[in-house]
Amino acid sequence: MSLILALDIGGTQLRLAAFPNNSTTPLRTQRIPTQCPGESAYERLTGLLDSSWPDEPVAAISAACPGPLDPERGIILSTPNIPGWINFPLVEMLSSRYKVPVFLGNDANLAALGEWKYGAGRGHDNVLYLTISTGIGGGVICGGRLLTGAHGMAAELGHLTIQPDGPLCACGQPGHLEAISSGTGIARYVKEQIALGRRSALSGLTQFGAREIAAAASKGDELSLEAFSQAGKWLGLAVANYLHIFNPSVLIFGGGVSQSGDLLFDPMKRTMAQSVMDQGYLDGLEITNAQLGDDAGLLGALAQAQIMLR
Amino acid sequence: MSLILALDIGGTQLRLAAFPNNSTTPLRTQRIPTQCPGESAYERLTGLLDSSWPDEPVAAISAACPGPLDPERGIILSTPNIPGWINFPLVEMLSSRYKVPVFLGNDANLAALGEWKYGAGRGHDNVLYLTISTGIGGGVICGGRLLTGAHGMAAELGHLTIQPDGPLCACGQPGHLEAISSGTGIARYVKEQIALGRRSALSGLTQFGAREIAAAASKGDELSLEAFSQAGKWLGLAVANYLHIFNPSVLIFGGGVSQSGDLLFDPMKRTMAQSVMDQGYLDGLEITNAQLGDDAGLLGALAQAQIMLR
Repeated sequence: MSLILALDIGGTQLRLAAFPNNSTTPLRTQRIPTQCPGESAYERLTGLLDSSWPDEPVAAISAACPGPLDPERGIILSTPNIPGWINFPLVEMLSSRYKVPVFLGNDANLAALGEWKYGAGRGHDNVLYLTISTGIGGGVICGGRLLTGAHGMAAELGHLTIQPDGPLCACGQPGHLEAISSGTGIARYVKEQIALGRRSALSGLTQFGAREIAAAASKGDELSLEAFSQAGKWLGLAVANYLHIFNPSVLIFGGGVSQSGDLLFDPMKRTMAQSVMDQGYLDGLEITNAQLGDDAGLLGALAQAQIMLR
Repeated sequence: MSLILALDIGGTQLRLAAFPNNSTTPLRTQRIPTQCPGESAYERLTGLLDSSWPDEPVAAISAACPGPLDPERGIILSTPNIPGWINFPLVEMLSSRYKVPVFLGNDANLAALGEWKYGAGRGHDNVLYLTISTGIGGGVICGGRLLTGAHGMAAELGHLTIQPDGPLCACGQPGHLEAISSGTGIARYVKEQIALGRRSALSGLTQFGAREIAAAASKGDELSLEAFSQAGKWLGLAVANYLHIFNPSVLIFGGGVSQSGDLLFDPMKRTMAQSVMDQGYLDGLEITNAQLGDDAGLLGALAQAQIMLR
């Protein structure tokens, strides 16, 4: 029996899971911090692989990594949280070291692939997956295949302009969905309104985010309720646009901010329903939570290897 | 040798071309008006097929039709310019009458397919095709396959919200690309500005459209130049969004308004370049005109049949 070594490479943690080729239950898993004084992230990664290398034959290494990256060329173009990984040829370096096939994918895209194959998207051919946390990312399955585009840079679903004169996104462009409906966007809205003199249970606090705002909202804090209502409204407009573009049969929401539930999704659904050009886009449309949690990236990396080895 | 009968069904004309399965040169073509007193559009269509039915065996009928329609179920949901075609089971009706396989596709989607297989998109796997005329439509090739979505309603590329408080689109929603950068949108802008007291070579005329505005712009009419500049700017923002979503390697522009050339495309390219989140989206990106003109729908219908019969 051969194994697939799935990697989830993040700025904080490196995770590895060794899956039998035909199973989603790993034989073993391991996680270590990405950063350690005196060692590069690549040295940490090869250390993890060396120490976990199994006795069984390895069919492939498959890695999920924050983008932008080019899965076809196997190159990480730049990844904000790992210093030095600029135009970094990860696939070539790992495959020449370990002499096995190596596959690379964008972590949000692979999470979508994982949810489709093994989670909330099973049985669908057209899936829209959005993960809403500090930022907004996602992935799309179109006609039973992961959307990647010419250089693996497709499906940047948080970077849709919904307010041309809106707040700046982390990417530098104005009015992207991510700037408005992410945890960062929700917190910015509350802070701006407090600075303008609005009262809130959060007034006077300096450090708070979407989690604290959700807690305040659940206790009836008006500004916090309004912040989620705004974020949900603009999310609903963006999702209506994605329905026109992709016509999916299921919407899957993951990420920490999605845990806020109805606070975000009631206004999202209202605006989405008002903003579609034809009711047909809503017929039979399933709206659901992601099922794989933190394991979406690893299971997506597994699915990627299974598809590539087929 | 068997033939594929390609149909391009429009509100004004019905066109038929009989292609040998392995050729893009039709053995014969015919066109008739869609509307005729005392006859339904369906009777006109079957009349056209009956009178053109070849002696050679027919491998399939493949039809391009304005949407919304469901290619998988073979049903035209509604098509504004053909009265009575509401939930119209065209595929079932034609296949039971002619006893051959019948395929149906959205005309803008099939034009994209035609341009990809036989026109400006050859050699690319990721194609974004936009047709800009009275409205704005389009189609997308993702990883070598036509994007259709769960019910064939994907790729409504004109129905992207780019000005949430903008003018109403023909579909009833505010601020869609089609409402702003189509021929209709360009003419609305000029008429609004004239009504506000702006001077223009077109002042005093009651009937004019994008063609007349382009002619006035080419003679230096300031308002007409501004109208194209606005339309191009918003088109550029929409295209930047589509680059983030699809990461295509080629952009193909068709439709009458695209003939205005630099008037529209200079501002489009400027805004597109300013609005992408990463230069990688522009690297090697080809921007070109559609090559198939009025035949894109027929050649797309041919390509659809070839793919389905494979």
